[in-house]
Amino acid sequence: MTTAAQSASPPLQIAITTGEPAGVGPELTAQALAGAAAHWPGAEFTVLGDAALLATRAGSVGVDWAALLAHGRRVRVEHRPLGAPSVAGKLDAANGRYVLDLLDTAIDGAVAGTFDAIVTAPLQKSTINDAGVPFTGHTEYLAERTHTPQVVMMLAGTGKRPLRVALATTHLPLKDVSAALSIDGILETLRIIDHDLRHHFGLPAPRVLVTGLNPHAGENGYLGREEIEVITPALKLANDQGIDGRGPYPADTLFQPRYLEQADCVLAMFHDQGLPVLKYATFGEGINITLGLPIIRTSVDHGTALDLAGTGRADAGSLIAAIDTAVSMARHRRGG
Amino acid sequence: MTTAAQSASPPLQIAITTGEPAGVGPELTAQALAGAAAHWPGAEFTVLGDAALLATRAGSVGVDWAALLAHGRRVRVEHRPLGAPSVAGKLDAANGRYVLDLLDTAIDGAVAGTFDAIVTAPLQKSTINDAGVPFTGHTEYLAERTHTPQVVMMLAGTGKRPLRVALATTHLPLKDVSAALSIDGILETLRIIDHDLRHHFGLPAPRVLVTGLNPHAGENGYLGREEIEVITPALKLANDQGIDGRGPYPADTLFQPRYLEQADCVLAMFHDQGLPVLKYATFGEGINITLGLPIIRTSVDHGTALDLAGTGRADAGSLIAAIDTAVSMARHRRGG
Repeated sequence: MTTAAQSASPPLQIAITTGEPAGVGPELTAQALAGAAAHWPGAEFTVLGDAALLATRAGSVGVDWAALLAHGRRVRVEHRPLGAPSVAGKLDAANGRYVLDLLDTAIDGAVAGTFDAIVTAPLQKSTINDAGVPFTGHTEYLAERTHTPQVVMMLAGTGKRPLRVALATTHLPLKDVSAALSIDGILETLRIIDHDLRHHFGLPAPRVLVTGLNPHAGENGYLGREEIEVITPALKLANDQGIDGRGPYPADTLFQPRYLEQADCVLAMFHDQGLPVLKYATFGEGINITLGLPIIRTSVDHGTALDLAGTGRADAGSLIAAIDTAVSMARHRRGG
Repeated sequence: MTTAAQSASPPLQIAITTGEPAGVGPELTAQALAGAAAHWPGAEFTVLGDAALLATRAGSVGVDWAALLAHGRRVRVEHRPLGAPSVAGKLDAANGRYVLDLLDTAIDGAVAGTFDAIVTAPLQKSTINDAGVPFTGHTEYLAERTHTPQVVMMLAGTGKRPLRVALATTHLPLKDVSAALSIDGILETLRIIDHDLRHHFGLPAPRVLVTGLNPHAGENGYLGREEIEVITPALKLANDQGIDGRGPYPADTLFQPRYLEQADCVLAMFHDQGLPVLKYATFGEGINITLGLPIIRTSVDHGTALDLAGTGRADAGSLIAAIDTAVSMARHRRGG
């Protein structure tokens, strides 16, 4: 017989990239981790960032950072040096490569198995671009660095049956959305959602409700034909593979609470069809999850909030939710 | 001196078109009006429909229709004969012209000043089309019959500060939305919203928050240029005319409760950008209002629910809200 102590898994290792140094990422990380021992007893945290910056920003929001780092080895800092001293609220291209360095360190560690999951605080694309590095976003960078041909952006709330909204297309002009949809693309999106909900979310039979592209899901072809020519064929192929995808449904019908209750995830066709309800419903505690990667990655769903940096007025709710979800996903993947 | 009795206005006259006879319209009308005396003391109601059908459907949901009609002349029926007997749940093209007749009678009465407002229960487009009459929707029909070149579809919730969402474009394929937007069109939409919120909703300084078309409102042109080339110029012209329109804002930012609290109305660029949040937030009690008409018209925001017709399981909440709003709008227009 094994005792509980013997069978206990080693702690989950969670990396947190603190992102743009002039933004709220460093201070929110300190605030979120101040309750780490109570919130996430089975996890340890590696905070990626400049050690002095983190201490300063933690202090600015009243967190006793030294005590937190000393307390039971639950939180440690992996020091990466800033390119230039950072002032809260002031962007500086000299720190563009620093921000990428944090991300690379986290990704490399996760791919190597050192980290069970990574949680990303917000970064500022322009800081990286102004440093001469092309960069379109966390999600795209993660896909490229892990050689993943297709990933899926999913936003989620928290709670027992959280609202989850995945997107078939993400950041492209609205007029280009129709042409970006394909049977293969939607099928692969459904396969990724189904796989990750099973293996990282512990859902044995995930149900995905799928929106149409057009008003009223095209109204039998009168308001557009993508439902007939693209979405329905993709759903049929997915169903043949044992994926419980249903639809396409009119978005303004599907996004009513009585229908959402029947869904583990909604697959929306484009950004502004899916995210307004999610943001409305989650009240600033929504999070962003990248599905389809070989690693687990969650993120806040807000930006760097430069105007709030250093004030202590930013809300750590989204980052706490992102950590919560990363811990839960890592535990499910480990099979516990 | 005038006494209260002397200065009291004559009752508001509200017409209700009971719509598709096989759907839930007739029974919901009976359910909604069962409380008319208590809910709307200053209004009288003319129910447009087949008298026998209305009595039958009212009975099927437990409303004592004869007593309601006898009670203080508050509710009366204007009989229009069915084309063929109607069975709940069974569409019949022989009643297509009946449905239009109800609508025509209401419109003519409103234009003539007999009715202060009209409230429409749902109809089934196919019943009318199958009767050989081209018909694309209530809103378009009302515009045509009243010779109104541009109308605005607005959906709304109820309550003290209700969420209101107007649309710059309505029922067209998503891929055609970008080309359908124009500076003049958005300017005229803003003018109509501003006018009607002032004169029919009693808002002395309505504030309209406007979404962008593209994700993140185009992100300074990186994700589309309609914000720069169309929406912002339209807003500038509107502001020059004294209209408090603001934006364009990213839809997933704007549709958060803390921003919505600052808006009397949101103008969304297209159907599935604006309506999912509205439907999510209003829990089946949303209503549809046509702005820009010479007459006042409100409507339920649901369909004929053929599967529920005659069962008493359909919810009259949206129709009650539509009547509420019509009464309130008519009162504001009258200046009371």
